[in-house]
Amino acid sequence: MVRRSGRRPGNQDTRSSILDAARSAFAEKGYDKASIRAIAAEAGVDPALVHHYFGTKDKLFLASMNAPIDPGTLIPQALRGPREEAGERLVRLVLSVWDSPAGTTALGMFRSALSNEWTARLLREFVITQVLRKAVAELALDPVEAPARAALVATQIAGLMVARYVLKLEPLPSAAPEALVAAIGPNVQRFLTEPLPAKLSAADGG
Amino acid sequence: MVRRSGRRPGNQDTRSSILDAARSAFAEKGYDKASIRAIAAEAGVDPALVHHYFGTKDKLFLASMNAPIDPGTLIPQALRGPREEAGERLVRLVLSVWDSPAGTTALGMFRSALSNEWTARLLREFVITQVLRKAVAELALDPVEAPARAALVATQIAGLMVARYVLKLEPLPSAAPEALVAAIGPNVQRFLTEPLPAKLSAADGG
Repeated sequence: MVRRSGRRPGNQDTRSSILDAARSAFAEKGYDKASIRAIAAEAGVDPALVHHYFGTKDKLFLASMNAPIDPGTLIPQALRGPREEAGERLVRLVLSVWDSPAGTTALGMFRSALSNEWTARLLREFVITQVLRKAVAELALDPVEAPARAALVATQIAGLMVARYVLKLEPLPSAAPEALVAAIGPNVQRFLTEPLPAKLSAADGG
Repeated sequence: MVRRSGRRPGNQDTRSSILDAARSAFAEKGYDKASIRAIAAEAGVDPALVHHYFGTKDKLFLASMNAPIDPGTLIPQALRGPREEAGERLVRLVLSVWDSPAGTTALGMFRSALSNEWTARLLREFVITQVLRKAVAELALDPVEAPARAALVATQIAGLMVARYVLKLEPLPSAAPEALVAAIGPNVQRFLTEPLPAKLSAADGG
């Protein structure tokens, strides 16, 4: 690696200040409207330093998404345990993440995904690679059926996010997480482990 | 009503050309970015005529939303019939609307709702006034439980829209509507008519 003259390597504190600022900006403004300039100003650094550490805005976005939540650890934890309660555990996990400070970031990214093809692709790839692979491994799903099951689970989880956090359809925003786990968990469970319509598992498009 | 000098009342063809253009613009660009000027140009009329017929952009948006779909007619139709199949009928209805040309508009509005507080409020009000009232009337739901049931149904319906049309999580986009009706209908049914967690129906936020 070539060290450019006049630029000193940053430290971890600076890096994490930038990530904090990026998380706030993406959450508040969405991917498109968040600017490197504003993120740098918030972090108290020069924009060039943000580019130096993270490269493009895309890369900064990815870095800021990976930081608050580690789905590679959390999802297997949630799916592990009695198979018949996996749906409830998954709903409990997503609520605990979204209700936490990291959830604000996740919501910003989710909003972005709905208006931005790049982010939609990112989220789709995330769902497929992270969630699906872990679910297949933990629940020993039939690999032929696994994509349909993961996509169906995604309908319920994404819809919960939309209705509770974006549309704010009462009583969802004010409901206790455990009430939502009890209401929605069994539906997720059905998607995970109950028989699927043949046409859907075959994914032949009918 | 005062007739203003020099302005002739338009005809239905002009009105519907404007509505067609508005539907395309809102679907393609979302609420914020669609402009009256561009809509008028697409419809081949003066922007002043758009304002004359529909007033503000907000009102044009409402008019364009109401035009392709009449939820006040469709939802009671879908809910009418055997109570135990209401969930399947509702999923079949939403797929038939979203797969139709009108569905492109609905998707544009839905995207807007996720990035725009005004549209989110509009959609929330739409769900509450149109969907909920009709569902309560048709299914004779307990009025205390009805808001929670409607909101839960909205989680599944909104999530289906996100996963099939926005994130395009296979096999959902290529699935036959009836495969999705079979997979998702029973979950909607559960939200409509199965017992709710007490905390949720009481909406006490517990």
